[in-house]
Amino acid sequence: MLYGQGESKMSDEIELKGKAARRAALRLAILDTETKNHALRGIAEQLIARQDAILEANARDVAAGRTAGLSEAMIDRLLITPQRLQAIAQDVLAVVTLPDPVGEVFDGTTLPNGLQVAKRRVPIGVIGVIYESRPNVTVDVSVLCLKSGNAVILRGGKEAAHTNAALTHAIVEACCAHSIPDGAVQIIESQDRALVLEMLRAHQYIDMIIPRGGAGLHEFARQNATIPVITGGVGICHIYVDKTADFNKALSIIHNAKTQRPTVCNALDTLLVHRDIAATFLPQLADMFAAAKVELRCEQRAMAMLEGHPAVHPATPADFDTEFLSLVLAVKVVDGLDEALEHIHAHSTHHSDAILTEDYSAAMRFANEVDSAVVYVNASTRFTDGGQLGLGAEVAVSTQRLHARGPMGLRELTTYKWVIFGSGQVRA
Amino acid sequence: MLYGQGESKMSDEIELKGKAARRAALRLAILDTETKNHALRGIAEQLIARQDAILEANARDVAAGRTAGLSEAMIDRLLITPQRLQAIAQDVLAVVTLPDPVGEVFDGTTLPNGLQVAKRRVPIGVIGVIYESRPNVTVDVSVLCLKSGNAVILRGGKEAAHTNAALTHAIVEACCAHSIPDGAVQIIESQDRALVLEMLRAHQYIDMIIPRGGAGLHEFARQNATIPVITGGVGICHIYVDKTADFNKALSIIHNAKTQRPTVCNALDTLLVHRDIAATFLPQLADMFAAAKVELRCEQRAMAMLEGHPAVHPATPADFDTEFLSLVLAVKVVDGLDEALEHIHAHSTHHSDAILTEDYSAAMRFANEVDSAVVYVNASTRFTDGGQLGLGAEVAVSTQRLHARGPMGLRELTTYKWVIFGSGQVRA
Repeated sequence: MLYGQGESKMSDEIELKGKAARRAALRLAILDTETKNHALRGIAEQLIARQDAILEANARDVAAGRTAGLSEAMIDRLLITPQRLQAIAQDVLAVVTLPDPVGEVFDGTTLPNGLQVAKRRVPIGVIGVIYESRPNVTVDVSVLCLKSGNAVILRGGKEAAHTNAALTHAIVEACCAHSIPDGAVQIIESQDRALVLEMLRAHQYIDMIIPRGGAGLHEFARQNATIPVITGGVGICHIYVDKTADFNKALSIIHNAKTQRPTVCNALDTLLVHRDIAATFLPQLADMFAAAKVELRCEQRAMAMLEGHPAVHPATPADFDTEFLSLVLAVKVVDGLDEALEHIHAHSTHHSDAILTEDYSAAMRFANEVDSAVVYVNASTRFTDGGQLGLGAEVAVSTQRLHARGPMGLRELTTYKWVIFGSGQVRA
Repeated sequence: MLYGQGESKMSDEIELKGKAARRAALRLAILDTETKNHALRGIAEQLIARQDAILEANARDVAAGRTAGLSEAMIDRLLITPQRLQAIAQDVLAVVTLPDPVGEVFDGTTLPNGLQVAKRRVPIGVIGVIYESRPNVTVDVSVLCLKSGNAVILRGGKEAAHTNAALTHAIVEACCAHSIPDGAVQIIESQDRALVLEMLRAHQYIDMIIPRGGAGLHEFARQNATIPVITGGVGICHIYVDKTADFNKALSIIHNAKTQRPTVCNALDTLLVHRDIAATFLPQLADMFAAAKVELRCEQRAMAMLEGHPAVHPATPADFDTEFLSLVLAVKVVDGLDEALEHIHAHSTHHSDAILTEDYSAAMRFANEVDSAVVYVNASTRFTDGGQLGLGAEVAVSTQRLHARGPMGLRELTTYKWVIFGSGQVRA
């Protein structure tokens, strides 16, 4: 079979920065941890030292955002205050304390022919990050890439262009002063949208793409990339309340999963309740959520049990395929664990799902059979987070299946190579 | 930012088989090892029981191949004899003896809040395999996918269509008789080339694509897939002979790496020789390879040292970017380790590279700095193989960096999920 080999056109900016990143990556890969940590401390210092310039750049973005009619929520995501800059610098220092994953040796053995074989953890190489308005991503991601020995090419949203440039300037300044190779951290300056597509196809220069943004960005990256993409960003999260669930624990977990931060991907979207307890459990739930201003969208059987409660509405089928990102919850009564599993298989985005139960066999079956990045028994879905699960930091939450699943930290920014020490062995 | 969401058209065959594979994958994921091993033994039996039908189908493909003017090498790759079928069945039984990677629990811990967190190894889901003429791939890949709990959709070359259909028939028969869910192993029957493209974009149904074939197929898959692709298939392999190399070991390793099986991706392509030993080493090499009928393509300095030797020719620059897959070797004299590393960085396909040296520091530096799937000191590059490196079997050799690098066995056909056991924990 013969296949055509499509070569994409590439602008000068991607090509120059791609080449510089590749050169930097070779040197970063063999940099010792101490040098990388010195540079990270230098970045934290530069961010504070350059506070005036950063806040001034941010003020220009905020003013432009207001003129362009961005919502107050968007403006707030964009805004950097002295306190927020301090917090960003503190987060950099927190990464200094994390162990360096590079150099870990694992799966080592000596083969019968005497070859000493092991895998050694190495950086991935060059990471491309495409993100939307939040400018703190510029610093977070740069620092995690540096610590794990990767070069990074950033492409932020145009709303935050001045802020991102000022932050990158501080990072690059600190890198120069601390023996980090040129090209380790670079930002794409052109606001031409075509460059996003070019980045996604620059597999000569970029080894992995991390989209940080909404479902549309993730889907665009998947459709167009010739580079491996870490997809994620969408979580339709389910909790199934089994008939043996402890009501107090259940109400507390559901409240936490829905309301503790409703705008994020690990917040609860769909509640499934066993029919044997629904008539007593659902009214308690409705009372709790009336106080918390959570709207319930109920399928028929649930609706029948909640007639007359405030903020209770009939669900449409689409509600069970919606990531609400707000104080709305879809509710359904199921005949039991089988129907709950079927519903989750049919509607899952493979992010985070939980069972609340005191029944051992039900708990084990749910843990075995639900195919999601994180499966919980008797805990809130809100724990799906690198910081919460002990990774120390998080670069993304993956809902795809290869390389890494769920929260990704420093180790997930590495790969391995096989290193084989011989004494003249040849293959028979 | 708004992004368009391209949806691809899909033929009935891909859609029906995709859906069946997804259903099967859910059940395969929770199948115990004993059931899977029974089915594998059943497949080995069916292959032998159906020998007449398989050989008859194969004879039709071979006859059609001769009519179409396939080379004798291609016909030989296509041909199944009773002995070869016996060997294929034996390979199936060998997979029975390998440990099942599914269910391994790792990175387990109890967090300060009492959550019991661990990763659990699970199948990837549905694997798509696109391959060219060798029909044994049909059995090899099906069996490795089954053992690791994955469903598989196969798309073989049209030259082997009858053989592949007969082999798949035997596999499916055995699966039915041994409690393997319908849809676990399926083959695309339509020979329409458009279906290759559809498979590469059927991310609703397929989780990972493995191309098994030449560089063109790999590049086509990378350019067009919306599903993660395991790229590989091309290896420009280097050996650097350092000035302290033991000549006898070096000649034996180079001979093995170049001639033991010259048509495969881990065979040697480029030899780099330290200038201090080149004048004595290269004539010995040329004598050895004159006897072995290996043609040497030498850059200027090497050429000057080998004037008058038989089968020695000047190299063109393209020779140092060529995977020869034949008895040809590119040869270059370098000033030392630095130049060798630079040459490898510039020309590498990141597959397998070796240094031959008795110098400890040179060995360590080469192992640290060469960025390839497998890096060797004093051993033949021919060991880059799942069987040789202790994986028991091999589904592909990856030269991309995510998920798995180098030889991929059963474990590399799995991913993990986080399983978290709580007792009512909520996020603060």
